[in-house]
Amino acid sequence: MGLTFELIRTTDAGGRRAQLHLPHQTVQTPVFMPVGTAGTVKAVPQDTLEQLGAQIILGNTYHLYLRPGHEPIRRMGGLHEFISWPRAMLTDSGGFQVFSLSELRKVTDEGVRFRSHLDGSSHFFTPEHSMDVQIALGADIAMAFDECTEYPAERGRAEESLRLTMAWARRSLEHFRAHQHEVPWAADIPDRTQRLFGIVQGGMYRDLRKQSAEQLMEMDFDGYAIGGLSVGEPRELTLEMISEVLPMLPRDKPRYVMGVGYPDEIEQYARMGVDMMDCVLPTRAARHGLLFTSEGRLTIKNRKFAEDQGPPDPNCDCMVCRRYTRAYLRHLMQAREALSATLNTIHNLAYYLKIMQRVRGSLENPEPI
Amino acid sequence: MGLTFELIRTTDAGGRRAQLHLPHQTVQTPVFMPVGTAGTVKAVPQDTLEQLGAQIILGNTYHLYLRPGHEPIRRMGGLHEFISWPRAMLTDSGGFQVFSLSELRKVTDEGVRFRSHLDGSSHFFTPEHSMDVQIALGADIAMAFDECTEYPAERGRAEESLRLTMAWARRSLEHFRAHQHEVPWAADIPDRTQRLFGIVQGGMYRDLRKQSAEQLMEMDFDGYAIGGLSVGEPRELTLEMISEVLPMLPRDKPRYVMGVGYPDEIEQYARMGVDMMDCVLPTRAARHGLLFTSEGRLTIKNRKFAEDQGPPDPNCDCMVCRRYTRAYLRHLMQAREALSATLNTIHNLAYYLKIMQRVRGSLENPEPI
Repeated sequence: MGLTFELIRTTDAGGRRAQLHLPHQTVQTPVFMPVGTAGTVKAVPQDTLEQLGAQIILGNTYHLYLRPGHEPIRRMGGLHEFISWPRAMLTDSGGFQVFSLSELRKVTDEGVRFRSHLDGSSHFFTPEHSMDVQIALGADIAMAFDECTEYPAERGRAEESLRLTMAWARRSLEHFRAHQHEVPWAADIPDRTQRLFGIVQGGMYRDLRKQSAEQLMEMDFDGYAIGGLSVGEPRELTLEMISEVLPMLPRDKPRYVMGVGYPDEIEQYARMGVDMMDCVLPTRAARHGLLFTSEGRLTIKNRKFAEDQGPPDPNCDCMVCRRYTRAYLRHLMQAREALSATLNTIHNLAYYLKIMQRVRGSLENPEPI
Repeated sequence: MGLTFELIRTTDAGGRRAQLHLPHQTVQTPVFMPVGTAGTVKAVPQDTLEQLGAQIILGNTYHLYLRPGHEPIRRMGGLHEFISWPRAMLTDSGGFQVFSLSELRKVTDEGVRFRSHLDGSSHFFTPEHSMDVQIALGADIAMAFDECTEYPAERGRAEESLRLTMAWARRSLEHFRAHQHEVPWAADIPDRTQRLFGIVQGGMYRDLRKQSAEQLMEMDFDGYAIGGLSVGEPRELTLEMISEVLPMLPRDKPRYVMGVGYPDEIEQYARMGVDMMDCVLPTRAARHGLLFTSEGRLTIKNRKFAEDQGPPDPNCDCMVCRRYTRAYLRHLMQAREALSATLNTIHNLAYYLKIMQRVRGSLENPEPI
């Protein structure tokens, strides 16, 4: 399969500028991945995402499995084809939504039985089934099926949860290896295959995290994610866990911290050596009228912006900041106009993507001291 | 002010290919005008409207007066500036929404008292106030304040309604002439002024329509609209009224039929000599999943499109048809995704605008018989 993760430069602080060669796109890392929940980054057309420089977006296995279903998507050529996204994609394992959105969950060693939040129908997810669904979706990167340990979790509970996640990781990998050639685009991109990442869990216990990382490395995944963070714990603890786990992971594989974070967080983590991050924050906050700017956060609905003719962010050259005023964005929000979500989301994503672009630049060409 | 409406070519059937020189744009007619209700063509960014070739869009005086208010918009430089739309705009008089949306209306010769549909607050609209609001908004074309006669209307009711509309037209024009120099962009575009159109009413009574047209022509407006159509009457009656009224109107002024219509209607009316039309149909239908195509109407949510990998319209080269499938548009609608309204609306507008482009082409270069 050749080189998948190519380090370009590393810094003393642990930061890594690299390239991740994926079937649909060579991704420049560190990278922020916008979340495209149900086959769409909410309210933003695909061509706009391209213009914004999004290199890789997420799809949620749980949502796509329930609607429109992975089999129709497989028959239509996979998720890339279905949503018309030619660049890279990553699907989560479905586990997070099964645990956070569905009803009447029953977890056994075998898997999770749950009811759909859409229509109450009953479903059973196992590591094997998650792999089947993710192979049918055919993202460039699939994730092992895991249980995201809640916060706070007693040690006993974290141990038990980790035991499950490790057993599921092994079964995920085994099933994935046996079936990864069934990805819908296999014939079109014969020289590259779908990739599978393992997920480090272990709650907020350093030794459990270490145990988790070691077990996963032994299984030899294509990349390693740190899961179970940003689940309600204080931010210092998130940082502590990341800085403890990163050195445990192999240098020559991509490292992905799931579900973070605020603009300053993604910059900080990227400089520490995190290669990939995703978060609903820029897109979800945008829909609620919260804009991230170089001057701090703006609650765009605030009355003080009613006649503010400045751009959302005076230091941003995104297509929204170049064209529209704070007053207009406020009006769209007030009037509950659909364009509000679109424009707010475009700006927030531009802001996030540009942070990472800047970090990549400085990792590559560090300023002289 | 120089030439405003420049006829390029007329056909035996009465069709007219012309140019309408407006302060912000020279509009090629016949033209279809997308409706931008509250300062946004719902769900479509302004740059997309430009790419689609929209030359002129509508703003609704009633909505903008209530929110964000015409005075803030005036202070921010007018509606063009506020919403960042550099091409032409037209505002309606507010009358139609006052009569269709507001509550507890009380009509007198002086004007209309009504309650806002947003918060129940009480407002009074007179012809003079409608002009003040429209001058503050500063669209290229303003409309006289009228009462849109309902259908069906008894003759006595239609006569009384017309009497009011004609008195209001005179007062609108008088007030407009005295204040049109107050338009917010007056200093920026010194050689052109805002325009005012009169509205022909008279219900479905030919002689009342004639009387209305004659009285308005005597007042000498910059253009003439035919109002009170598409209000529930059978389509043959709409056609009949348009074909009777058109010849009553002056040849050298633009003719605008308000609130029509289906794709075949706008083509038919344009070929008969209607220069301008507007309608919420393409945009509103899009939000409900109804697509207009060269092969007829598509209810995109229909189960039969679940795995249809064809474009919405195989004969359309719009940015939606070039990139997305029916299956994907169906999925977005099913999942109630915001992108659904955006993509559906882009296609429908592209379809409408291309009809008019084609009609303009054939009016200009008629095929040899």
